[in-house]
Amino acid sequence: MDTDPAEHPTWLPSQVLRVRGGRLAPAPQTDQLAEETPIALEYNGISHATMLATPADLEDFALGFSLTEGIVGSAHDVRGIEWRAECDGIVVQVEISSACAARLKERRRAMSGRTGCGLCGVETLPEVVRDLTPVPRAHALPLASALAAMQALRGRQPMHAATGATHAAGWADADGALQLVREDVGRHNALDKLIGALARADIGPARRAGSLVVVSSRASFEMVQKTAAAGVGMLAAVSAPTALAQRLAQRLGVGLMGFMRGDDATLYACPERIAS
Amino acid sequence: MDTDPAEHPTWLPSQVLRVRGGRLAPAPQTDQLAEETPIALEYNGISHATMLATPADLEDFALGFSLTEGIVGSAHDVRGIEWRAECDGIVVQVEISSACAARLKERRRAMSGRTGCGLCGVETLPEVVRDLTPVPRAHALPLASALAAMQALRGRQPMHAATGATHAAGWADADGALQLVREDVGRHNALDKLIGALARADIGPARRAGSLVVVSSRASFEMVQKTAAAGVGMLAAVSAPTALAQRLAQRLGVGLMGFMRGDDATLYACPERIAS
Repeated sequence: MDTDPAEHPTWLPSQVLRVRGGRLAPAPQTDQLAEETPIALEYNGISHATMLATPADLEDFALGFSLTEGIVGSAHDVRGIEWRAECDGIVVQVEISSACAARLKERRRAMSGRTGCGLCGVETLPEVVRDLTPVPRAHALPLASALAAMQALRGRQPMHAATGATHAAGWADADGALQLVREDVGRHNALDKLIGALARADIGPARRAGSLVVVSSRASFEMVQKTAAAGVGMLAAVSAPTALAQRLAQRLGVGLMGFMRGDDATLYACPERIAS
Repeated sequence: MDTDPAEHPTWLPSQVLRVRGGRLAPAPQTDQLAEETPIALEYNGISHATMLATPADLEDFALGFSLTEGIVGSAHDVRGIEWRAECDGIVVQVEISSACAARLKERRRAMSGRTGCGLCGVETLPEVVRDLTPVPRAHALPLASALAAMQALRGRQPMHAATGATHAAGWADADGALQLVREDVGRHNALDKLIGALARADIGPARRAGSLVVVSSRASFEMVQKTAAAGVGMLAAVSAPTALAQRLAQRLGVGLMGFMRGDDATLYACPERIAS
């Protein structure tokens, strides 16, 4: 019953462009990207939650989530775990004891609205990847601007300087000057706050398309989706992107850079967004 | 309308015990911890989502989340944003246009179950902090075991070695020998997978209470809650804990270590869990 590794690899080779010493390499190289897959959990046939996760150890995941969320009191309340691939994701069906199922039903009934975060509000797997319009074309952003914006971000994180516990998201125009920064314990929250600040600053679509979001974290699928929803043409991250983030960035026309360290970086999607 | 910084500080001083060169300092020192606060979002009076976030820039957060989740199409659809402190958290009330409210209602109606992740399934703020039993007392865990388990974790992350994009959670007995490791693109998922594997390994409550979870990430409130739900006495993280994680760990009797680098570390809660 373990996931077939051939069917759901946990990481994938991908062609990327390296930046070394501020210069873009002329030819692509092969890199390995971690896969990220929508995993929908069903309890006794009823949809419960959809999360983005690594498609491995699904039995451990379903059992552990059921325990830590208090859906079951012990492993004995889980009668069976099965899964099937569906719509670019995996549906995990968990059979729980009738007592636990009744309690879960009661808990659901007690909720007047829906609650959640990030992916919440999605019922079925196809809804995870939202139907977003690609970001319009724009003048290519100078590579030096992206590197400069990321270097400036490090000095604009007072919360991180004090605590070491927070992430930051910043926004820069094509000249690389960092204009807005928001910090939060959650990297998705930091990006949502930045996008809220951008909306309040009333920046028009053309300027957004030629601009850049820099984040102090990794770049997941959801962060590419948020960047595209904000109409920003480029997402640059200190750390790694996932394979799903790369595919989505390519599809939505979002330039995606990662592993930005000083004058080094890697370009994962839409190289036409960058002028070297 | 900005959050009163005096009422909701974004970081807080706290007394901690430092470990340097494998030795626990005799006296506590002051450290700064990032606050983490449950933020409940309501749209036109109806609960929508509860997230853990830094209690600052709430107007940006509410507006950005509404935009990136597609709840509103533009900032003009948001008529007003207000908030109030309630039950250890903050309720943010967002007034949206009637067209957006109708569409959100339709979206909710289309969902047969509830969906989400992490905090999902919680409707009101008091439900965020679940009513968990404190972890039973146990023999203090040797400091050297915690340091050894964390050092061993670095060598047991093949997915991270290949991609640089994943987190790991490991479990060790009191001797510090790492027995289970799970990796995932999400740190909460890695911990859920580990706890599922622990349940399948059928480890009893007394052994769990004297054991240790090590994680390659930060230690948030939710990760302390998951550790306590699994009945494990100690959580050790490579990076920082939040202030809320520290308070919860103290209340649930979970030893909490952070910033574990070689033979250095910081002890944030329940020092009685560690024998130096």
